[in-house]
Amino acid sequence: MELKRKARLALTDIYGKERLKTSKEDRVCYAYDARNARCIPDAVVFPTSAEEISRTLALACELGFPVVPRGSGTGTTGGSVAVEGGVVLVTTLMDRIVEIDTDNFTAEVEPGVITGDFHKAVEAKGMFYPPDPSSAGVSTLGGNVAECAGGPRAVKYGVTRDYVLGVEAVLPTGEIVHTGVRTAKGVVGYDLTRLLVGSEGTLAVITRILLKLLPLPAATATLKVSFASMDEAAEAVTRIIASGTLPRCVEYMDEASISCAQSIADLDLPQGCRSILLIEVDGSASEVATSLEAVAGIVKGAGAMAVEEARDAHEAKRLWTVRKKVSPALYLFGPDKINEDIVVPRSAIPKMVKKIESLKKEYGLPMVSFGHAGDGNIHFNVMIDKKDPVQKLRADAVIDEIFDHTLALGGTLSGEHGVGITKREYIGKELGDKELEIMRGIKKLFDPKGILNPSKIF
Amino acid sequence: MELKRKARLALTDIYGKERLKTSKEDRVCYAYDARNARCIPDAVVFPTSAEEISRTLALACELGFPVVPRGSGTGTTGGSVAVEGGVVLVTTLMDRIVEIDTDNFTAEVEPGVITGDFHKAVEAKGMFYPPDPSSAGVSTLGGNVAECAGGPRAVKYGVTRDYVLGVEAVLPTGEIVHTGVRTAKGVVGYDLTRLLVGSEGTLAVITRILLKLLPLPAATATLKVSFASMDEAAEAVTRIIASGTLPRCVEYMDEASISCAQSIADLDLPQGCRSILLIEVDGSASEVATSLEAVAGIVKGAGAMAVEEARDAHEAKRLWTVRKKVSPALYLFGPDKINEDIVVPRSAIPKMVKKIESLKKEYGLPMVSFGHAGDGNIHFNVMIDKKDPVQKLRADAVIDEIFDHTLALGGTLSGEHGVGITKREYIGKELGDKELEIMRGIKKLFDPKGILNPSKIF
Ligand SMILES: Cc1cc2nc3c(=O)[nH]c(=O)nc-3n(C[C@H](O)[C@H](O)[C@H](O)COP(=O)(O)OP(=O)(O)OC[C@H]3O[C@@H](n4cnc5c(N)ncnc54)[C@H](O)[C@@H]3O)c2cc1C
Ligand SMILES: Cc1cc2nc3c(=O)[nH]c(=O)nc-3n(C[C@H](O)[C@H](O)[C@H](O)COP(=O)(O)OP(=O)(O)OC[C@H]3O[C@@H](n4cnc5c(N)ncnc54)[C@H](O)[C@@H]3O)c2cc1C
Repeated sequence: MELKRKARLALTDIYGKERLKTSKEDRVCYAYDARNARCIPDAVVFPTSAEEISRTLALACELGFPVVPRGSGTGTTGGSVAVEGGVVLVTTLMDRIVEIDTDNFTAEVEPGVITGDFHKAVEAKGMFYPPDPSSAGVSTLGGNVAECAGGPRAVKYGVTRDYVLGVEAVLPTGEIVHTGVRTAKGVVGYDLTRLLVGSEGTLAVITRILLKLLPLPAATATLKVSFASMDEAAEAVTRIIASGTLPRCVEYMDEASISCAQSIADLDLPQGCRSILLIEVDGSASEVATSLEAVAGIVKGAGAMAVEEARDAHEAKRLWTVRKKVSPALYLFGPDKINEDIVVPRSAIPKMVKKIESLKKEYGLPMVSFGHAGDGNIHFNVMIDKKDPVQKLRADAVIDEIFDHTLALGGTLSGEHGVGITKREYIGKELGDKELEIMRGIKKLFDPKGILNPSKIF
Repeated sequence: MELKRKARLALTDIYGKERLKTSKEDRVCYAYDARNARCIPDAVVFPTSAEEISRTLALACELGFPVVPRGSGTGTTGGSVAVEGGVVLVTTLMDRIVEIDTDNFTAEVEPGVITGDFHKAVEAKGMFYPPDPSSAGVSTLGGNVAECAGGPRAVKYGVTRDYVLGVEAVLPTGEIVHTGVRTAKGVVGYDLTRLLVGSEGTLAVITRILLKLLPLPAATATLKVSFASMDEAAEAVTRIIASGTLPRCVEYMDEASISCAQSIADLDLPQGCRSILLIEVDGSASEVATSLEAVAGIVKGAGAMAVEEARDAHEAKRLWTVRKKVSPALYLFGPDKINEDIVVPRSAIPKMVKKIESLKKEYGLPMVSFGHAGDGNIHFNVMIDKKDPVQKLRADAVIDEIFDHTLALGGTLSGEHGVGITKREYIGKELGDKELEIMRGIKKLFDPKGILNPSKIF
């Protein structure tokens, strides 16, 4: 479907020729996200203000074309892909850090600010913004809010939701609203702020974000712990959490992830190592020392082969870089990746690990798992060649079994990546009919014409 | 309005004679909350299961009578008062702690569990549930969730919202829904959990709560800091927060609060003390020592007259007991209390304190303020005799000025007490028309017949 002449003229009116892209070359650049779904939009626009977004959405309602918000397109569930065509609205020009308030530990930002840039800006002022998706070097804060992004530090510090005090947003009808507060607390009216957090760009376009900050921890330390089996690593995670010591990160890699990681850089692991944990603790210098000792004792008790502390910040950074590159390196095992981010109660990780092992044997497909073990969030990947229909069918069966097992263990189908288009068909496994009916009612209330990011979630 | 015969028979069918109260004596006991609004309901019921609540609400829809959820009735904005008559549904018999999961740091509870009992139960297992409204000895967890209760520890640990993972709830139509997750994270679908948190019993009756717990901090210490003026105390709070040290509580009392406190117990304050801060730090033993030193240095720099550490747990407890009794002791200054819980950005506390001083002079009414200074949450009280119409008018004018000033400083009208009936007429000062329209739309979606806690918030 092409945009009608009238729509194109009106969009030119708002964006000029510079910030409205309609050539094929430009449009294909905004046709996919990290999931590799591909839908070429009819146009791409780059707003610089809430007013422009408001005019765009009002126009969309009038003329009936879809609008799909997009930050950096690092989403892994197809959220920013224009499934029904229409206009992709890219927020990257709205990238001002409006204010960092060192008295009140808050910040106000535009949605297109890159997460990692924001980390640097607040840390330079002695403050700390914990959410750190592994994509932080590329992802936007708007995308983080829309997906309720997590990341390794969520174990101790929680997720994006826990840091959003309020937002300015443009409703699908074009109206601009303000939700939440600028203060540490506030309970006036229903919590529209958290309703928008994690709504995957289907309820409103977020144009300003008020964020809560913390004091920057004085010290951090990183441990690399090697195990002869994934079972032992999983058991160690359970024991750490139950011990009451709360590291800020507890990441794991299974054997296949380690192979990927080794293909990027030598991890210098002991012979026979089949799983590693990356553990980071933070706090005052003395607290860090105490926590390190406690954690080291626990992992040794759980059978660790080696426990090594990163000698310095440089070495710690290298370890994290390797961990963050595992995901892209998975293509070693196959041209196509099916990636899920299930969560189970932390103590059920050993059970989930066993299930994955048995599925590997049963289906004979390469499966890789790694992720945020500290909060039970497992990034589970099946590598296939989608052109091979048998592999595709097998992979679907694996995903079905993984999802059922996740729910049976009291878990959820997505810890941080959202539903988008890729988990749509599974959502009914987790949510009841009435719950879905209410969600659809909310969507209808916000977006009566159904023009904002259609065909997502439901 | 009396309940129709049909309704009464059907309720007897559900509750028997034991758990349905219709005598005047019984009904007046459930006619008010801490705000002292008084509306006698037509009946009071004490369900023991979600199913009974479901049947009650279905009946209410069919016959058209209001149902008002109620925990312990400690709310301060009239939330549990049956303004339009009907049935008050008291959750106190649903008081089972269903599970405390020491592996996963989660708990599952019924809504009628008393907050303080829950604190004790989890602390006995080495775990920690931070939200601690000063009413914790009486309030229920269901009431805490419905109001998104805060308390002194919110400075460091946040509010009830931050600990609710999911709920079971009965919709006004009688359907039972499950929201959220049992895991540390989850983003499948819209965030109905946080939409219910703070909805003041107007969207659903909460029947089960899944809560997140933390490890119990190893050590705590309490400081009592005296100042010659409220200004200096306010300045000290700003400096503490800006310093990056994060105490778990920073409470303040102004001169009038101190008089009230002294009427309960001798606080042993230096001559000329006009304001005190109660500061509590926690963490590992060494962290507590470091924080104490840092905080003591800051408050001295801000002009403190005396800085005293509670000698032991007993003395610390005594200090907190006195602080918690200030609110009921205010009647020293007048028979009626108008109590507001405004929040301003923390750095604006000195400005707010100056405003209150000038209003005192201008209006000549007793005004008392104290509260959670660490998060800018000021419990502001005007004591009057409501029978005196001049005093009542003046108090209304004071509240108007306080609210306008709060909003001008970037604040909010309620940090934790909610809107209920007492702030209804002011809500338009803070929320825009469109925001209110959406909230009303959500109410209608959940409660098409308008039978659940009508006439509240909007
Ligand atoms: C290598 C890699 C590692 C990753 N690691 C993590 C991780 O550790 N934790 C994690 O949580 N995620 C992770 N992700 C997923 C992804 O990075 C996050 O979901 C991120 O928040 C997306 O940000 P974005 O700016 O790229 O958003 P996009 O992909 O552009 O959009 C994502 C969704 O948000 C919506 N959206 C974007 N901006 C707005 C706005 N202003 N208003 C309304 N809706 C908007 C879009 O419509 C879409 O539905 C990873 C992805 C990759 C590729
Ligand atoms: C002396 C004193 C000190 C206080 N200190 C604080 C403080 O420090 N911090 C703070 O936040 N508050 C404080 N409060 C206010 C009050 O205690 C809290 O709002 C508390 O959460 C109310 O709990 P409750 O069980 O008494 O609820 P109620 O007063 O019975 O009800 C409060 C609201 O919740 C709804 N509700 C109750 N249970 C349910 C349920 N199961 N499902 C749905 N809706 C329900 C009711 O309809 C009503 O709207 C204080 C009050 C007093 C009197």
